[in-house]
Amino acid sequence: MASYLITGCSRGLGLAFCSLLASRPASEVGKIFATSRKESAALKELVDKNPSKIFSVHLDTLDDASIKAAAKTVEAKLNGGTLDILINNAGLCEPAANAAAMNNLEKHLSTNVVGVHLVTQAFLSLMQKGGLKKIVNITSTLGSIEMMPHYASTGLAGYNISKSALNALTVQYSLDLGKEGFTVIALSPGWLKTDLGGKDWADLTVEEGAQASLDKITGAGKEQNGQFMNIHIKGWEKPKGGGRNFYDGVNPSW
Amino acid sequence: MASYLITGCSRGLGLAFCSLLASRPASEVGKIFATSRKESAALKELVDKNPSKIFSVHLDTLDDASIKAAAKTVEAKLNGGTLDILINNAGLCEPAANAAAMNNLEKHLSTNVVGVHLVTQAFLSLMQKGGLKKIVNITSTLGSIEMMPHYASTGLAGYNISKSALNALTVQYSLDLGKEGFTVIALSPGWLKTDLGGKDWADLTVEEGAQASLDKITGAGKEQNGQFMNIHIKGWEKPKGGGRNFYDGVNPSW
Repeated sequence: MASYLITGCSRGLGLAFCSLLASRPASEVGKIFATSRKESAALKELVDKNPSKIFSVHLDTLDDASIKAAAKTVEAKLNGGTLDILINNAGLCEPAANAAAMNNLEKHLSTNVVGVHLVTQAFLSLMQKGGLKKIVNITSTLGSIEMMPHYASTGLAGYNISKSALNALTVQYSLDLGKEGFTVIALSPGWLKTDLGGKDWADLTVEEGAQASLDKITGAGKEQNGQFMNIHIKGWEKPKGGGRNFYDGVNPSW
Repeated sequence: MASYLITGCSRGLGLAFCSLLASRPASEVGKIFATSRKESAALKELVDKNPSKIFSVHLDTLDDASIKAAAKTVEAKLNGGTLDILINNAGLCEPAANAAAMNNLEKHLSTNVVGVHLVTQAFLSLMQKGGLKKIVNITSTLGSIEMMPHYASTGLAGYNISKSALNALTVQYSLDLGKEGFTVIALSPGWLKTDLGGKDWADLTVEEGAQASLDKITGAGKEQNGQFMNIHIKGWEKPKGGGRNFYDGVNPSW
């Protein structure tokens, strides 16, 4: 019975994680803490349907005070229990015509890197006593520096750079926390039909991405500590229809 | 006759670059713009000795207004000429006991990544008309995500992560600017006996690192666009004396 804390749950992938996890038996999934800057109607509805399972918690990953307050709220709700799985899912993705034109680099680094660090820092003590000790940072294959020439002209320079930095953050944490039995991974959930990914042109439904991501998260043990993972979607082992993305379940290069 | 702009010239590697370049013949090295937040006595002395060659320019990489003012100053001094080589050398390196203990991640990302971006952005138009079009971002092998397990427990998590992000920034720029004939590289200058590196325990003198770096910079052409380079120091192809660093001149993994 694993407990979860997931950031960025008002919509998209975070909301889909909550929905999928809520449908699992209580023997498998315990309390789910769904954090958001602002609870959406969709999140409220999900919480109302599963009042003993999902707890909506206010948390702004850019505001350290709100993160610390959230950690206190979660600690009280856990009532002596521990936090098993932390999914750092909240993220920002805004366009830039090209690298030199970026006016949002700092913003991406704050949300996608520093925010993840502050959240991890704040919830670490609740996880250190737990059994599973998994920290999952939602990244992107666009953050693979090796693959950047493959993904040239994405128009997402700030996002891509922040995901490379998030991958580095993941490895730095994994090296320190591996000794304590933690599994810290960076997971690319695929290009999903969400507000962030683009509802009309992305490759996969949010449910497909969420399910494939949970498969990776569930399967990850200490041997996977420090890894960068791509989801596996059958039939998507190679790019389709002139696209560049593939979901072969193989760890991308850094 | 190449013109240079180098950031972070009050001391250390930046100052050593200026000193070495000033000793080269005028047929090889033209104007050198040495920027610093605050001109040091050592930089002033070097400028006073080479008044027609080195120009000291105030530039704080954290302050966009000062960067833009510096670009105007340099443009005026170039008097219709162009800037050939930009060396983004200014950087910050502060310790952290471990990843979770970092309280300086944002600071490292601002100085070592956003600062480099803002400087590059501001000086780009002066380089676009030039012949050499080289942008050199001073990085570190500690920023190689692949090598982080090799360099575990450096006590420099924030620095390391910022250098991974700087490598990603370098590749994003290289992909856009390569089409215009630019060479954009990330260069690791070695662990040097400077204030940043540690005067007592680092591997190489600042002159060794500066000379080996200039060899790489001079040798880099369009074929090297987007590469991550390590300097080459004879006798240092493998780590020495129980250390972990090596300077084999081979491009590290990302």
